[in-house]
Amino acid sequence: MTIANTISEIVRIDLGDRSYDIVIGENLLGQASSYLHLPKASAALIVSNTTVAPLYEAALKQALSEHFKVIHTVHLPDGEAHKDWVTLNSVFDTLLAHACDRQTMLFALGGGVVGDMAGFAAASFMRGVPFVQVPTTLLAQVDSSVGGKTAINHPMGKNMIGAFYQPQRVVCDLSVLKTLPPREVSAGLAEIIKYGPIADMAFFDWIETNIDALMACEPQALAYAVRKSCEIKAHVVGQDEREAGLRAILNFGHTFGHAIEAGLGYGEWLHGEAVGCGMVMAAHLSEALGFIDAAFVKRLTGLIERAGLPVKGPLLNATDNAGKYLALMLHDKKSVAGDIKFVLIEGPGRARVSVAPEATVRAVIDRCCA
Amino acid sequence: MTIANTISEIVRIDLGDRSYDIVIGENLLGQASSYLHLPKASAALIVSNTTVAPLYEAALKQALSEHFKVIHTVHLPDGEAHKDWVTLNSVFDTLLAHACDRQTMLFALGGGVVGDMAGFAAASFMRGVPFVQVPTTLLAQVDSSVGGKTAINHPMGKNMIGAFYQPQRVVCDLSVLKTLPPREVSAGLAEIIKYGPIADMAFFDWIETNIDALMACEPQALAYAVRKSCEIKAHVVGQDEREAGLRAILNFGHTFGHAIEAGLGYGEWLHGEAVGCGMVMAAHLSEALGFIDAAFVKRLTGLIERAGLPVKGPLLNATDNAGKYLALMLHDKKSVAGDIKFVLIEGPGRARVSVAPEATVRAVIDRCCA
Repeated sequence: MTIANTISEIVRIDLGDRSYDIVIGENLLGQASSYLHLPKASAALIVSNTTVAPLYEAALKQALSEHFKVIHTVHLPDGEAHKDWVTLNSVFDTLLAHACDRQTMLFALGGGVVGDMAGFAAASFMRGVPFVQVPTTLLAQVDSSVGGKTAINHPMGKNMIGAFYQPQRVVCDLSVLKTLPPREVSAGLAEIIKYGPIADMAFFDWIETNIDALMACEPQALAYAVRKSCEIKAHVVGQDEREAGLRAILNFGHTFGHAIEAGLGYGEWLHGEAVGCGMVMAAHLSEALGFIDAAFVKRLTGLIERAGLPVKGPLLNATDNAGKYLALMLHDKKSVAGDIKFVLIEGPGRARVSVAPEATVRAVIDRCCA
Repeated sequence: MTIANTISEIVRIDLGDRSYDIVIGENLLGQASSYLHLPKASAALIVSNTTVAPLYEAALKQALSEHFKVIHTVHLPDGEAHKDWVTLNSVFDTLLAHACDRQTMLFALGGGVVGDMAGFAAASFMRGVPFVQVPTTLLAQVDSSVGGKTAINHPMGKNMIGAFYQPQRVVCDLSVLKTLPPREVSAGLAEIIKYGPIADMAFFDWIETNIDALMACEPQALAYAVRKSCEIKAHVVGQDEREAGLRAILNFGHTFGHAIEAGLGYGEWLHGEAVGCGMVMAAHLSEALGFIDAAFVKRLTGLIERAGLPVKGPLLNATDNAGKYLALMLHDKKSVAGDIKFVLIEGPGRARVSVAPEATVRAVIDRCCA
């Protein structure tokens, strides 16, 4: 596999009048040229969090000052535990305190949580204002900032309240990944690895070959992985924006993963860690249902482990662990009429969404948990 | 003017794949046939309030029982003062407590507040579930249930948080209007009268002729007024779903009206009362800017008065009343970059959105307030 020169590449998300570009490259965040040709607006609001703002907000503000007369900022508390209505409301409070109008453009500067909340704020403020994603984690660059899913959590379920709302642009600055803690890099790799078994085994081969370079955040390797991930996601989302069918395959590993996150309490494991482990469990379920062989499960598990991710599910309940997982998965958004819908690997590079017999699921959970 | 036989008429809202029908007629709410051919779902949630539910929920539930296996209900506290996040969240709590899935269909049974909140809940729950409007006030039947505007209030502004989200159907049962208090009838007539000066003077003539029949809730008169109002609104919304331009003319009277509602505290005046008075003020402003003559202002004011609506604005501040109105109007969603956008009558039956000199607006407020 060759790694193309990927500095400042563009991946187009094709959604008719909601189409937009993902711009990928080094040192993009602080360049005014990254924000050319956006809809006209006099004011911008940078939505960031208390961890990311000190690192990158000044550079973004400087770049935006060439395009906007006024730039406001709001800093959310860091972490999935704050992805709730109270935090979201602080964005609305800021917008209204500054008398922002319906042309105000929001900039989501941060990881998936900031992107989800700034996106839902943009979707809802005055019934919709434009926004731009400036993801600063690997996970956000390859997954959450792309495709228009925005949401907050409800005490009874993750991402239960939100909107499909597309950004005007996604600016993926690879340079910011250099400051990312290793645990966050691994979490991002989970979503990158995901694209292999569901859609593209050649990419999976490439990840296996380059996993050490990716773990070390080598720019060329990251650039290729980000671009490829965005291309695959763009292709899927372009066919099914509102998750009527196909798009659900992007949730491979997420049904078990959400149960882990909810069962441990949001924020205990990173989302990517839960997805990594969830993919192992979903692969075992696919094997138990006869779709794939043990060798492929072992190969996928090995790569997930090399990416520094957990491959054993946590115990969520001492007396009926499988029952606890099942109860939590029943609240997954893919569940319909009391049936849990799993994303299964039909064969390497091909996914399907399907129900599964409870006994089989219980056996898989028992086998996969520590 | 002849009044057509309007029992069970259909007005189509043409919005591509978001198109839907408004069904207008007597005794529709409790008939199973009113809910045929909706998307397949196993569960329904009726969202109503503590005033309307005792009157109509049983009949709706009975009718829906032929289409849904399970029907849940949630009763919101009555009134604009409760159109907030806390109340909205009670809808999400109910949906999640019953493990509702993303096919669950919401039914908004009530006036504008219920419709706005159930609609926004439907737009946001799991990023969007289908919903049906069953408006039980005249105002909701001729205005708020049609066109897909949903929202809740923020302490700093009305309808500041919401979505453009279209229902699957609107079922306008004229029979329910018989139990409506006279004050609510008048409030609904404000939005009916509105369609005349902005779009259709023949309809305005008809309203003038039939105002007594409308005040008395005569079914044939109401049926014609509801259908005609929905047709005009459908025509405008069909051209500009997300209020990029033309649709804003439907806010005639609403800029001053929102200031009245916010200044007095939401719920003090009914929305329709504030709009009625706001139309008088906007007409005076249109005259002051030279668009229409005093005779037309007088004619419009006379009809609004005959409809039982206030025509003098309340004093919102003892020392600088006009300044208070201006400050409140600056928070209106139509305002852009610090300019208040007014919907003005350019000539009878024709509206435009425009800024106005502050001195002129102040003079109009001084002249129009009690």
